[in-house]
Amino acid sequence: YYGFALLYEQADSGNDPFHIQTRFQDVHTMIFIGFGFLMTFLKRYGFSSVAFNFLIAAFAIQWSTLIQGFLHSFHNGKIHVGIESMINADFCSGAILISFGAVLGKTSPVQLLLMTLLEVTLFGINEYILLSLIGAKDAGGSMTIHTFGAYFGLTVSRLLYRPHLNKSRQREGSVYHSDLFAMIGTIYLWLFWPSFNSAVTAHGDDQHRTVLNTYFSLAASTLATFAISSLINGEGKLDMVHIQNAALAGGVVVGTSAEMMLTPFGAMIAGFLAGTISTLGFKFITPILDSKLKIQDTCGVHNLHGLPGVLGALLGALVAGLATQDPLPKGGTLFIPPPVYFPPGGILKMSFLASPPDTQCFEDQIYWEVRLDLGTL
Amino acid sequence: YYGFALLYEQADSGNDPFHIQTRFQDVHTMIFIGFGFLMTFLKRYGFSSVAFNFLIAAFAIQWSTLIQGFLHSFHNGKIHVGIESMINADFCSGAILISFGAVLGKTSPVQLLLMTLLEVTLFGINEYILLSLIGAKDAGGSMTIHTFGAYFGLTVSRLLYRPHLNKSRQREGSVYHSDLFAMIGTIYLWLFWPSFNSAVTAHGDDQHRTVLNTYFSLAASTLATFAISSLINGEGKLDMVHIQNAALAGGVVVGTSAEMMLTPFGAMIAGFLAGTISTLGFKFITPILDSKLKIQDTCGVHNLHGLPGVLGALLGALVAGLATQDPLPKGGTLFIPPPVYFPPGGILKMSFLASPPDTQCFEDQIYWEVRLDLGTL
Amino acid sequence: YYGFALLYEQADSGNDPFHIQTRFQDVHTMIFIGFGFLMTFLKRYGFSSVAFNFLIAAFAIQWSTLIQGFLHSFHNGKIHVGIESMINADFCSGAILISFGAVLGKTSPVQLLLMTLLEVTLFGINEYILLSLIGAKDAGGSMTIHTFGAYFGLTVSRLLYRPHLNKSRQREGSVYHSDLFAMIGTIYLWLFWPSFNSAVTAHGDDQHRTVLNTYFSLAASTLATFAISSLINGEGKLDMVHIQNAALAGGVVVGTSAEMMLTPFGAMIAGFLAGTISTLGFKFITPILDSKLKIQDTCGVHNLHGLPGVLGALLGALVAGLATQDPLPKGGTLFIPPPVYFPPGGILKMSFLASPPDTQCFEDQIYWEVRLDLGTL
Repeated sequence: YYGFALLYEQADSGNDPFHIQTRFQDVHTMIFIGFGFLMTFLKRYGFSSVAFNFLIAAFAIQWSTLIQGFLHSFHNGKIHVGIESMINADFCSGAILISFGAVLGKTSPVQLLLMTLLEVTLFGINEYILLSLIGAKDAGGSMTIHTFGAYFGLTVSRLLYRPHLNKSRQREGSVYHSDLFAMIGTIYLWLFWPSFNSAVTAHGDDQHRTVLNTYFSLAASTLATFAISSLINGEGKLDMVHIQNAALAGGVVVGTSAEMMLTPFGAMIAGFLAGTISTLGFKFITPILDSKLKIQDTCGVHNLHGLPGVLGALLGALVAGLATQDPLPKGGTLFIPPPVYFPPGGILKMSFLASPPDTQCFEDQIYWEVRLDLGTL
Repeated sequence: YYGFALLYEQADSGNDPFHIQTRFQDVHTMIFIGFGFLMTFLKRYGFSSVAFNFLIAAFAIQWSTLIQGFLHSFHNGKIHVGIESMINADFCSGAILISFGAVLGKTSPVQLLLMTLLEVTLFGINEYILLSLIGAKDAGGSMTIHTFGAYFGLTVSRLLYRPHLNKSRQREGSVYHSDLFAMIGTIYLWLFWPSFNSAVTAHGDDQHRTVLNTYFSLAASTLATFAISSLINGEGKLDMVHIQNAALAGGVVVGTSAEMMLTPFGAMIAGFLAGTISTLGFKFITPILDSKLKIQDTCGVHNLHGLPGVLGALLGALVAGLATQDPLPKGGTLFIPPPVYFPPGGILKMSFLASPPDTQCFEDQIYWEVRLDLGTL
Repeated sequence: YYGFALLYEQADSGNDPFHIQTRFQDVHTMIFIGFGFLMTFLKRYGFSSVAFNFLIAAFAIQWSTLIQGFLHSFHNGKIHVGIESMINADFCSGAILISFGAVLGKTSPVQLLLMTLLEVTLFGINEYILLSLIGAKDAGGSMTIHTFGAYFGLTVSRLLYRPHLNKSRQREGSVYHSDLFAMIGTIYLWLFWPSFNSAVTAHGDDQHRTVLNTYFSLAASTLATFAISSLINGEGKLDMVHIQNAALAGGVVVGTSAEMMLTPFGAMIAGFLAGTISTLGFKFITPILDSKLKIQDTCGVHNLHGLPGVLGALLGALVAGLATQDPLPKGGTLFIPPPVYFPPGGILKMSFLASPPDTQCFEDQIYWEVRLDLGTL
């Protein structure tokens, strides 16, 4: 029989499995509650948001355990699994769920499962090249998770471009309670980000520093988001979309550098910049992506994961470069270029995958037995 | 004065109290958030669901600390308590809350408190017989928690059978937002189940294996649930009831065997089967229980805890048997037979317990000051 | 450049940083989810409740790291930070959020940020006097957090008294779903309170005892709250306001004494009394505060934090006194007297701080882009 071997072993990071089980539970909460509820902001797509998130992630962690296992811990015909492989599988799910955010409301469950199948594979290869072959450091995944997930999702969204999406625009917004459900997701992602960035860092000082830097960066990005959101609105009002998303950019931007000698003030500056850029992105860049580049980015993942991820990779290169005097630090390497994503994206266009019609996007009723007449929402 | 002794001692499982405090908090979250919100799916019974869950569990942990203490850790006239006894009290609450699910919407708070008083006592005796006298292993409680809680609740529901419950049928369903609240419960139960099953297993390899097997079983039961839910619906649509419940069957089914040599593939197969059987149970068995056996099972606990619990006990017997060559492994022992539950169930029928009338089941307004006119829901 | 030093050091409590990171995440959840959602009970103020809570806490943790750092860990021109300072910053945020509860719905974000700036400073001084100069013990903050936060908030509320608040009374209540959102906050606060009270207690027996006592006190206060809420209502119905708040009084009341020789029965008695007094406070004292003392206490923080906090300080003095035979134990010292809060409260009255008009209190639309016409709520 084919089998995994269950070896209870010291994880690569030198962490006690029972210690990192706690970090695992934090990351697990981010993947299933955090991402799941963050996407419930749409008024008539709450079931699909939280449940397809559940489906995708449950599939991704199994498939990714195999893919990552073959690439990283395949010995004597067996894959070695443990708490650390569970965390890495959750990390991979995170990238897929970022891509899901870009195509939210415009894809069927079958398309999403196929996307997961393809993207998990690419994620594994990309991560293997970046971390194992090139030797870059990216504990919190600015590059491997956020930048990869965002640009993969945006590429797929471009390939699935719908010129007539305005037929469903009346559903592409929130109602009062759906925005509150989304805040559950936001706060959980925000809360546990220190665990996310430190989950697989080396035990000791590195881990301690990662937690502190992530905490300060997030606090600063939250203040920046409130300030900029109020400033860019004519009447000084705040926008829930900004609070729900841009406040998290502080976690993304220090994903590469948090374990380095960033210092708390450095982390706060990075977080403040990330929150600012992300908020401005929602206001000014998302409409341009749609109208000029034909990229319809439902959740604005470009603003939350794309831009802050690239910024985080550059910051990692800068901090690593300052420390090592290396003019071209490994942290500068980004990811497989988007054209490589075209074939998988193209596959998703095939008609038998039951993509929803342009008039039925952002709509739960085509996939769910809905007991309430949603017409009133 | 009478007193507990507070002895800070190494727990029976050999776990450091400060390590298992973390597992305790995970289990605590499942009991109060997980079970509490899972039952908020009813459109007009959200207050009662989450708050009676809170009341029952707060009472059960105190009463169960006494009962379990007398049975397991009573020395020199004092009960010894500690983090592990807190986990065990939470486990006992879990069984009571499963029974609550069977009678949800049809019982008054006074009836529920009395049921808790009686069931906690029986739970303690049953667990004592099974674990201490017979010597069975059941770390995740397939038998002691899930099977016991489900069949106790179903017995009570049978004894409290209401032939005219159709007078309240229009309230026995969900609305859009109540299903989203219920998903909070589902996801939290799903997330922390690895902690639940491993909370009192022996430190080391056993605990590590339990976490991994539970994780894989749950991921597989989630995929099975989506697949079967879509297949058994004429139009290929998904049903929230299935996702909210059957996706969790993977945690129940490995409750006995997760700490054994189940292997990840074994866990995935078990989870897939459990998700399948549980989903089919909601579609085909629940209506039969109601019409033929006069058992009205509001939350379908027979499908989520009853069937997967029995399956889990058999699986535990099988895996233990394969390992020990023992043809009748102790894992095969199930529980006190349901007829023993008849007297407590009968007591609950007494008229002064303020059971709601048939026309006012599944209705918050009879127990709560409700500020909104619920007539619009 | 000015900088914090990041010293990875054994925390003052003797706890391993990686152990208390877990407690930190529990406390963090209470601050951002617990307090945030607890205040979403208002029908038209959900966005402001959860998001201003987020804003205040994100600001307070940064400012408090500086203030507490200068007072407690400033050496050689650098502030030393670590997981324990993160927990202490979260504790300080807790006090600010308690004050926020007293003025909820009647203050602009600018006023709230200014209040945070002033209150964090006073909190640091008060805590320094109480813990470092006088040498009192208050691990769970009955005095430093709950009593201080409550009476500071009530003083501010008094200074900002609005004689014409009845113009907004129709919005000062809940709707069905807003009460369910608030229960998310309640349950999370309740769940993690054992971690809150034990987060900075000394490693070992003290911590173990703190967890157990808090757990038993909370369970008892929950039962008391249900009982009293039902008794004081003419028709025997329960009131969600009581369940959401008074059930938590058991955590507050043992904040000082939980690490002492309180015993589980002592904890249960304390919790039962606290739940009783708190529930009675909502029914009988809050209206008097409003009509006689001109203190408009939106969330009833006097009942949840004020009274149980004072009771907890007295209980701490009693238990410490019994143990040491000291007739005037240090635990009796309470806090800076409220008149000291008058100047900061006065500053908040200044007109350029954009306080909402009397007709627009408890209203999201003046601060938020709200996509749904809230008129229907």
